[in-house]
Amino acid sequence: MRSVAYGFFAVIALSGAVYMAQAGGRADDKASPIFGIKIPAGYRDWKLISVAHEEGNLNDIRAILGNDIAIKAYREEKLLFPDGTIIARLAWSYVPSEENNKVFGRPQSFVAGSATNVQFMVKDSKKYAATGGWGFAQFKDGKPDLTAALTTCFPCHEPVKARDFVFTRYAP
Amino acid sequence: MRSVAYGFFAVIALSGAVYMAQAGGRADDKASPIFGIKIPAGYRDWKLISVAHEEGNLNDIRAILGNDIAIKAYREEKLLFPDGTIIARLAWSYVPSEENNKVFGRPQSFVAGSATNVQFMVKDSKKYAATGGWGFAQFKDGKPDLTAALTTCFPCHEPVKARDFVFTRYAP
Repeated sequence: MRSVAYGFFAVIALSGAVYMAQAGGRADDKASPIFGIKIPAGYRDWKLISVAHEEGNLNDIRAILGNDIAIKAYREEKLLFPDGTIIARLAWSYVPSEENNKVFGRPQSFVAGSATNVQFMVKDSKKYAATGGWGFAQFKDGKPDLTAALTTCFPCHEPVKARDFVFTRYAP
Repeated sequence: MRSVAYGFFAVIALSGAVYMAQAGGRADDKASPIFGIKIPAGYRDWKLISVAHEEGNLNDIRAILGNDIAIKAYREEKLLFPDGTIIARLAWSYVPSEENNKVFGRPQSFVAGSATNVQFMVKDSKKYAATGGWGFAQFKDGKPDLTAALTTCFPCHEPVKARDFVFTRYAP
């Protein structure tokens, strides 16, 4: 089941370049299904939690940002994350940089290409009680992804229940 | 010459875990040699420019952050970058995540481990006129790196003179 779901995500992630408004991320009125989440204003300006790279079908490089409530909770190592926490996962295609490689004198440099999609985890312990207090959303090109893409979010986050269902650790 | 210099950088980068104060990065009174740059207060909270991965001896995953002047210049596609611009390159060891891989069902996930070092480019067109208007600094564990590590900064940035000596492009 999960591999099928990831395949689906990967198709979305790889299907092309995405335009995002540069200042703060594009706002959009359309809410994501199931959890009713809209793109939070200004998320592109949020502080950095960490970075990661996914190989395989995703083949992306990503940054995980947090709103002020999220950053404060991380730094205080507070669990559970308080209501109002929003964690944003931005991802871009994983692109070798010929320009950088020339300077390094070897193929070693990979940079962010076009945006693939953006995901959000929103903490509301009452509203999202059935999914550990978290609502999940995914947007591509400012538009929410289908319900099917969201049904797998919570099951995949369950293995890290001990960290309030959040995979990403704060980068020192 | 350059490969030797990168080897030197790599030794620094790989020589162990680094403690950084969590809130805003550690401030330190010691200035970096040659350019006299100190760690800018609060740089860990700056906005994200982009992310990258370097293979080879560096073997890191990195985030490039900018102060408000830098971010504004990027978004307005302003060249040259104005005086006062500071670009920060944070890097962490590149670590496979067994935890994530279990969920994905395959080895594909790489995350940020311990901090390696932090670099800064500071724009001051008068003070740093001899190096394209940029001063360069590198800190490890809050302490400035040696003069030798800085002599190669500008020569390596010269190939991107057309972009005001800055490699990193803004991630959409």
